[in-house]
Amino acid sequence: MRHRLTLVLAAIVCAAALPGARSESPRAAIDAWIASHQQAIVGELVDLAAIPDIAADKPDIARNVDALKALLVRHGLTAEALPTAGNPLVYGELNVPGAAGTLLVYAHYDGQPVDPKHWQQPDPFKAVLRDGRLEDGASLVPGPVARARYEPDWRLYARSVSDDKSPIVALLAALDALKAAGRRPASNVHVVLDGEEEAGSPSLVGAIARYRQKLAADAIVILDGPVHPSGRPTVTFGARGILTFELTVFGPKFPLHSGHYGNWVPNPAFELVRLLASMKDDRGRVLVPGFYDGLEPLSPEEQQMLAAVPDDEAALEKLFGISAVEQPGLSLQDAVQRPSLNIRGLSSGFVGAGARTIIPDRATADIDIRLVKETPSAAMLERVKAHIAKQGFFIVDRDPDDATRAAHPRIVKLTVEGGETNAYRTSPLAPASRAVVAAITRMFGEPPVQIRTMGGTVPIAPFIQAMGVPAIGVPIVNFDNNQHAENENLRVGTFFTGITTLAAVLTAPVPAVAHPAPSPVHPAAGAAHQR
Amino acid sequence: MRHRLTLVLAAIVCAAALPGARSESPRAAIDAWIASHQQAIVGELVDLAAIPDIAADKPDIARNVDALKALLVRHGLTAEALPTAGNPLVYGELNVPGAAGTLLVYAHYDGQPVDPKHWQQPDPFKAVLRDGRLEDGASLVPGPVARARYEPDWRLYARSVSDDKSPIVALLAALDALKAAGRRPASNVHVVLDGEEEAGSPSLVGAIARYRQKLAADAIVILDGPVHPSGRPTVTFGARGILTFELTVFGPKFPLHSGHYGNWVPNPAFELVRLLASMKDDRGRVLVPGFYDGLEPLSPEEQQMLAAVPDDEAALEKLFGISAVEQPGLSLQDAVQRPSLNIRGLSSGFVGAGARTIIPDRATADIDIRLVKETPSAAMLERVKAHIAKQGFFIVDRDPDDATRAAHPRIVKLTVEGGETNAYRTSPLAPASRAVVAAITRMFGEPPVQIRTMGGTVPIAPFIQAMGVPAIGVPIVNFDNNQHAENENLRVGTFFTGITTLAAVLTAPVPAVAHPAPSPVHPAAGAAHQR
Repeated sequence: MRHRLTLVLAAIVCAAALPGARSESPRAAIDAWIASHQQAIVGELVDLAAIPDIAADKPDIARNVDALKALLVRHGLTAEALPTAGNPLVYGELNVPGAAGTLLVYAHYDGQPVDPKHWQQPDPFKAVLRDGRLEDGASLVPGPVARARYEPDWRLYARSVSDDKSPIVALLAALDALKAAGRRPASNVHVVLDGEEEAGSPSLVGAIARYRQKLAADAIVILDGPVHPSGRPTVTFGARGILTFELTVFGPKFPLHSGHYGNWVPNPAFELVRLLASMKDDRGRVLVPGFYDGLEPLSPEEQQMLAAVPDDEAALEKLFGISAVEQPGLSLQDAVQRPSLNIRGLSSGFVGAGARTIIPDRATADIDIRLVKETPSAAMLERVKAHIAKQGFFIVDRDPDDATRAAHPRIVKLTVEGGETNAYRTSPLAPASRAVVAAITRMFGEPPVQIRTMGGTVPIAPFIQAMGVPAIGVPIVNFDNNQHAENENLRVGTFFTGITTLAAVLTAPVPAVAHPAPSPVHPAAGAAHQR
Repeated sequence: MRHRLTLVLAAIVCAAALPGARSESPRAAIDAWIASHQQAIVGELVDLAAIPDIAADKPDIARNVDALKALLVRHGLTAEALPTAGNPLVYGELNVPGAAGTLLVYAHYDGQPVDPKHWQQPDPFKAVLRDGRLEDGASLVPGPVARARYEPDWRLYARSVSDDKSPIVALLAALDALKAAGRRPASNVHVVLDGEEEAGSPSLVGAIARYRQKLAADAIVILDGPVHPSGRPTVTFGARGILTFELTVFGPKFPLHSGHYGNWVPNPAFELVRLLASMKDDRGRVLVPGFYDGLEPLSPEEQQMLAAVPDDEAALEKLFGISAVEQPGLSLQDAVQRPSLNIRGLSSGFVGAGARTIIPDRATADIDIRLVKETPSAAMLERVKAHIAKQGFFIVDRDPDDATRAAHPRIVKLTVEGGETNAYRTSPLAPASRAVVAAITRMFGEPPVQIRTMGGTVPIAPFIQAMGVPAIGVPIVNFDNNQHAENENLRVGTFFTGITTLAAVLTAPVPAVAHPAPSPVHPAAGAAHQR
């Protein structure tokens, strides 16, 4: 409450006191407003983060919903809670007379679970301020957390300050900053705040049909994730999907003495390693037929975009202690444009102190395939199965019975685990993409880092696909934020720059799309916007 | 004490009452004596098994030593304890006037540890009698365990009744039975009882130099292990050795997100499976150059010996639930004549419910190689290392530091675990081998099952090699004896037949060898006796 009053007063004071800002560069006016409102902005974030927000904790979720609705109203938006099969969506609108199109801005208000004893502060939901990174030995900054001025390198430590409550506060501050600078958004701004992202956003796709009119938009702006490690403003156009499965090869029904039967009873670990080795060569090329089907060479414009990402690969190699990359000559950005096949776990018999001289009864590998837009999970799974069958394995979906064992010399159980999430990719050449990049370029005098495909996977990909309109990620937090771990933090300098970035995005003239109505029944309806 | 008196009395009665036995077939006389002394023989075994015998338990070991010395003396041998670096050896002699050579009979008096709560009887050292196999639902036979008559299928359940106290009691009973039948051993009988076999017999080789004169022999008879599953009398001429090592391939210094870095950071699990797959083809043939060096085709006589082993391979395949053997066309006996390469454990990242989408930081395989006489462990290790290096790996013996990581793209740590034990093999054509087989054939009217090489490994192999004289295994217990596990047991019918087998062995005229003095300094000195 303290902060709300301060923010409102400050906004009035600023708008009155700085009429001349309108004649400065757009960035100077925005930055000046932010500089003079740091205390109110941070205060709002600290208050929001003080409400615990684990998706499964319903009373706290309800408190978050109430606080968010109040926050939206305070900043001039409508606000309502939209019930779903799970936690409510918080929804707000700020319609702009004469706007060509509508931006749906997505963020989430739930956070990762916390284990307070691993945090270096008394309460993970009570923010503390430090003069740098904890890992670098930073000290607590005494006094109240919300203060008139912050050094850019200072960091707020609390659950969800980074993932994902700061983008909500930043968006509202950006709207205020624009208003104070005498400008207004170029599109209608509709906000949807997800209360289950850290639980996989299970209710989001289902909400599209239920709230068809409210969610209809010409582009989606996703406020989540970190900016590029260089710290520069960043936009993302896609994320890889994921398909996880487990392979178990069966040997004898029970472990056997490797002396009595070694050379005679087949060893399932050897069969598994031969199967896995058949899947990828020693230059990192996946050998499953069709694995790369559909991928086409990148256009010169796309290649230029990848090359412009300021990755410091040498520093990463040193940090990771590796002296060669998996596919010789492939840059990190090139690597994540392609599907990958990863062994994330192996298990058979015993290793180390508990090792026993046995032929194991089974050998298991857990695999994940990162998908790209051209390689949907269902097709990929069929290709993998065909490859496994071609290696002479009979594929089952449960442990084999005696008859199955008697009929097949090589048996592998394949089970798909933890669901599948397809990739998504918005074309960087789509009008909305160009408009957002151009707006940020105008604001900062140089283009943002543009990520064609993020390597990781986001749970809202099915929502994006079902919506069928361009989706552009605009992260605003530091990459080293300990997201999902203890001591989550937000570098305040990165956060304040993020407000400026969002102010730019709000001025991007996103055109109305030909078929703005979302089409959950035909998720591919928006394919024309994507590539 | 009860049993000792009974046995002595029974022996006197038998020798006096059955003079006519001498005119029957040798087997009938022996078997008749055994049949009329079952109670005394079993009583002696039950009393001996009642003394706990874990090698690390020194007071109990001392009680075993005292009991064994008394037992030897009672049966007409000298007896003394020979101190070693570890537990004492119990040593006894029965010299026979005019004997050509000396047999050193080896057995061990220590047993595997017990976990009483897993046993289906109150005390693992207090024998109980059942009317069959526990696994088949056998019932307890009421009354005292030592009784006048036993059904052959009845079983004694107690630690060490099978491994390895029954052979000690059986040897002494065989001496008594021979005596009662008016016969005497064809060689001097020197007995050495090991108190550390289940702990790897660490003091046995060192005892050779210390007790050179006492241990000198023309052949060794090893009383340990089970007879062939067919239940027929069995002799063994060798055992495979073992070399165990662990391979750990290194990836990034810490697990990395498979989305952010998959396709770019090398995956150590893939490098490991490729390395392992390079070691064995899909027909079970090991591809490490030199792996089979030194092996020559078996002679027709050896081939005949292998073919005569009554293995029921179809029954084993059904029991194990496998429908093909590892090397197509290779019999079980053929398989164990060759070295084997076995993956006994695999580990990397996580599998199952705890799986995480990471590129693991390391991947580990535990390997055992079963060795044959032609493939000593040191040479085999060098061949494996050469093969690994040829696959492009830099081999280290500890976790790599940053400089090592920077210098080598593929790094594997190789550590030899748990020591190495070489194989041993006595030629089945050696005079001592022929004499033992002929004696058993005479006794039973058919040759014993002859095992050229057992698949497993025995800790006394270095002792056999250092002694340098033919070593012949004569097991006498049932193969399904739960040796080393809970509910160890002895089928009494098999045990009684084993006494007859040992009586036959004692009548084998084992010739004096050219250089009977053991030669611990030159373990290969006896190579002429081996093949």
